[in-house]
Amino acid sequence: MTYALINRLTAKPGRRDEVVANLLDSGASFADDDACLLYLVAESTEGGDAIWVVDLWTSEERHAEALQGDDVRSVVKDTLAMLEGPPEQFVIRPRGGKHPEG
Amino acid sequence: MTYALINRLTAKPGRRDEVVANLLDSGASFADDDACLLYLVAESTEGGDAIWVVDLWTSEERHAEALQGDDVRSVVKDTLAMLEGPPEQFVIRPRGGKHPEG
Repeated sequence: MTYALINRLTAKPGRRDEVVANLLDSGASFADDDACLLYLVAESTEGGDAIWVVDLWTSEERHAEALQGDDVRSVVKDTLAMLEGPPEQFVIRPRGGKHPEG
Repeated sequence: MTYALINRLTAKPGRRDEVVANLLDSGASFADDDACLLYLVAESTEGGDAIWVVDLWTSEERHAEALQGDDVRSVVKDTLAMLEGPPEQFVIRPRGGKHPEG
């Protein structure tokens, strides 16, 4: 079943661009992963250090697998240290609209 | 320039499914609108009445135009009346990842 997440991260002051770079780096392999339907990394336009990541995957298991590589885990660990606190994570169930489908 | 939004809506108790149906109805025309890159309507998996809508458009102007039809405006008005309050709207700037591009 499709697995979807919205994540809200708050970078420590001045570290937003580093966090964004890490998120793009850690997700680089998703481009060739057919289980990843959407991985949208974005920042707030209102200034501040808010970062949003929207994930849409073919299943929760495939998402978990994609995060298991040593490289990815290392980058994720570094990234967490640049945040004000744990990411807020909202698990959501797609109901429709216009989006990539697996 | 790409225009992206994350919207968090809270339906009045018991009205979540009606709100979701209206959101899908009001967005039906987006399927054939090449300015709409993503329109993801989803509900929280944790119960409650939270609904999330993620929008990605080729420009803010094209998004505004898509909401101007009388049919869409009527449905949007009805939908707002089924919410606990105004939608929370987060305007975001995509930085990368894997997502539809215009």
